[in-house]
Amino acid sequence: MSDVKIILNESEIPTHWYNVVADMPNPPLPPLGGDGKPVSPEQMLAIFPGPLLEQEMSAERWIPIPEPVREIYRLWRPTPMFRAYRLEQALGTPAKIYYKHEGVSPAGSHKVNTSVPQAYFNKMVGINRLTTETGAGQWGSSISLAGQMFGIEVRVYMVKVSYNQKPFRRSMMQTWGAEVFASPTDMTNAGREALAADPNNPGSLGLAISEAVEEAASRKDTNYSLGSVLNHVCLHQTVIGQEAKKQFAKVNDYPDMVFACCGGGSNFAGAAFPFLADKAAGKQVRLVAAEPSSCPSLTKGVYAYDFGDTSGYTPMMKMHTLGHDFMPPSIHAGGLRYHGGSPLVCQLYHEGLIEAVAVPQIATFEAGVQFARAEGIIPAPESCHAIRACIDEALRCKQSGEKKTLFINLSGHGHFDMASYDKYFAGELTDYDYPAEAVKEALKRLPKVAA
Amino acid sequence: MSDVKIILNESEIPTHWYNVVADMPNPPLPPLGGDGKPVSPEQMLAIFPGPLLEQEMSAERWIPIPEPVREIYRLWRPTPMFRAYRLEQALGTPAKIYYKHEGVSPAGSHKVNTSVPQAYFNKMVGINRLTTETGAGQWGSSISLAGQMFGIEVRVYMVKVSYNQKPFRRSMMQTWGAEVFASPTDMTNAGREALAADPNNPGSLGLAISEAVEEAASRKDTNYSLGSVLNHVCLHQTVIGQEAKKQFAKVNDYPDMVFACCGGGSNFAGAAFPFLADKAAGKQVRLVAAEPSSCPSLTKGVYAYDFGDTSGYTPMMKMHTLGHDFMPPSIHAGGLRYHGGSPLVCQLYHEGLIEAVAVPQIATFEAGVQFARAEGIIPAPESCHAIRACIDEALRCKQSGEKKTLFINLSGHGHFDMASYDKYFAGELTDYDYPAEAVKEALKRLPKVAA
Repeated sequence: MSDVKIILNESEIPTHWYNVVADMPNPPLPPLGGDGKPVSPEQMLAIFPGPLLEQEMSAERWIPIPEPVREIYRLWRPTPMFRAYRLEQALGTPAKIYYKHEGVSPAGSHKVNTSVPQAYFNKMVGINRLTTETGAGQWGSSISLAGQMFGIEVRVYMVKVSYNQKPFRRSMMQTWGAEVFASPTDMTNAGREALAADPNNPGSLGLAISEAVEEAASRKDTNYSLGSVLNHVCLHQTVIGQEAKKQFAKVNDYPDMVFACCGGGSNFAGAAFPFLADKAAGKQVRLVAAEPSSCPSLTKGVYAYDFGDTSGYTPMMKMHTLGHDFMPPSIHAGGLRYHGGSPLVCQLYHEGLIEAVAVPQIATFEAGVQFARAEGIIPAPESCHAIRACIDEALRCKQSGEKKTLFINLSGHGHFDMASYDKYFAGELTDYDYPAEAVKEALKRLPKVAA
Repeated sequence: MSDVKIILNESEIPTHWYNVVADMPNPPLPPLGGDGKPVSPEQMLAIFPGPLLEQEMSAERWIPIPEPVREIYRLWRPTPMFRAYRLEQALGTPAKIYYKHEGVSPAGSHKVNTSVPQAYFNKMVGINRLTTETGAGQWGSSISLAGQMFGIEVRVYMVKVSYNQKPFRRSMMQTWGAEVFASPTDMTNAGREALAADPNNPGSLGLAISEAVEEAASRKDTNYSLGSVLNHVCLHQTVIGQEAKKQFAKVNDYPDMVFACCGGGSNFAGAAFPFLADKAAGKQVRLVAAEPSSCPSLTKGVYAYDFGDTSGYTPMMKMHTLGHDFMPPSIHAGGLRYHGGSPLVCQLYHEGLIEAVAVPQIATFEAGVQFARAEGIIPAPESCHAIRACIDEALRCKQSGEKKTLFINLSGHGHFDMASYDKYFAGELTDYDYPAEAVKEALKRLPKVAA
């Protein structure tokens, strides 16, 4: 039996992030302001540091990773890649299945790959405070840890219903020294207005974003930090795919298909973009984004300019959207409940360079449990989407006899999501249909943008 | 900067377990039955498989690890050893601190190092069902995973108060296919009697053991499995220390002191015994067991024959004990709330070959938070005891200027213990004094054994 784990040395942690823009057939479309014109860097500098804005707009293929960031990466990177021998055996498939385990990071997911450089570049420009929002808590945890590493105060606005339902994610953030508040709070205008209208407002991601952005915009010492969607976030995540390519090279293999879950898009981008570089150079590889069938922005959304948040405070971005005020059903994969997605991922999907598949909730947990029983690791509900899509392909290979090489990016572990597994075992989960009517209504409220 | 992580290849997973009995100055004292005579193997075969009993009584130095066990070990072993550069810096100590991270296992602790071979050897003798008890849930999780790997049904009697307070450990066991019941149940005589006396009985570890043993003893197809204390359990854990020695060799270093938390003793044994082999050969190394000051069996107990469980159903073992019916204060390190300890560890302590230190609860969480903020990883409350003892030594080195090499065995992560961290941050933890009066009373009820 060959090794189960394909391990790299710390010297093999990538020295540069890979910028997919350099290999896109068309340049990315810019974000637009309320006036329909591209947003100026000056407007963005109120809440983002210069170096991150430069990355956001760069067309350079390789962007160096600062040494202090690589030093923090060493705490968990390179992450191991596993050959899923036991899962293959359980499925009886001739396909080879590999997965890369981003859940080995202290915060439990890939999100720290970007929280660390975000904290670093903010520190470099003299920022000592960051605000952010978090829903389920993966992102809030990751930026809390990164802030602690660079001596930056972190204030997290956590959606109140999650704050109450997931107290242990909150504890985790506090262990790393962050302040965590249940949003809406009485500390911002946005929060006070929401509370005035309804003192029992349970909060929403859109509202928490409004609170975090409002505070960052109103204080010179404070910036705002976002955990997905934006170009620089996708960029930072490419350490995943770059390492994966080195790991495949070590075992003289190469994936026919790459599977990653896709909400805001940074996890998919991180795994897939470095392989897309090979594809641009003529290599055969299929890149599959797995999204929830209840919130299928890639497979059912329209490709249009829309706001990034529910309330329409952010710039407009060209993306596959279900409408910025569409409220997705309450599935147990909070990280994938997003009406839109990364403009880079959406443009590549629009241009046919990547694929997408929508998978229903119960089948994702079924796949997660099958994975856990074979491989040990209990995956995050988000990651179960990629596992489901991969298992479906492995079962197709069983029918056809194809010996494909399949690769899953396992974005995180499910240690803080066991309540969701409980509901699965209790038969209490719902397979929400694609809410076509609600989306149709929401799409009527897309912002008007001159063609 | 040298590598943070010292990594071994899968070919470096130990091929044998190390049996410390071969290097002990005196042979271990046997367990005694109710008649005061050594327990016969025949009596033990009712609930344990032959190969494990052979290991329990073996004096061979090296016992081969079966290949199917090593194959499962590959899912997480070898575990990484970290140089704690950031913690050293935070402490300002000239000491070098290393830690081995057993929390990377799917179940989150070192316990799987023994649950896997226990499941394997039971399977080998045709056993397809195992019963066990669990308190906090680390052991129950580990045997559930191992049972799943070898196609063995696992039934876990989980102390009712933990079953209700730690629902996510229960979910984890169910994810791996185990049946979990809140003990006391109405399925055993022991449980029915307890419920008849008090329908609201919250359960105890002693009672859960009684239920698990009763079921195993009454069914031919079912054996019982224990997660600590016994010789064969300590034996299996020696993969930790063996790997650690290889890792130190890779960086041309060797520990002056080894720190591990100690409850039943298997985690300490796993880390320390392989170093004790070097000590027996003349090498200088101090081996420190860190126990809670509220349940200080090594530092305050008497060295005597006592029962392993509260009710006195098990054989008597020679160990440092606080009295088998002593009820330790409810500290947040469930794995360390045990009145006695491993007979091997206790004999070595009695003979002066190892040391022990008792640390108070609040200081252990303080150490855990300091560790988490420097290194990222949030440690289990049990592991925080070893961290506390090591940090205290590192601070002594700061005073003295000594450049000692210190080694912590990090037994597990704290992802399922965040409620305890919450109580620490809320200032709701108590530093229970050593309950001298309660121990004095309990020690009056030690069983009488002819000298």
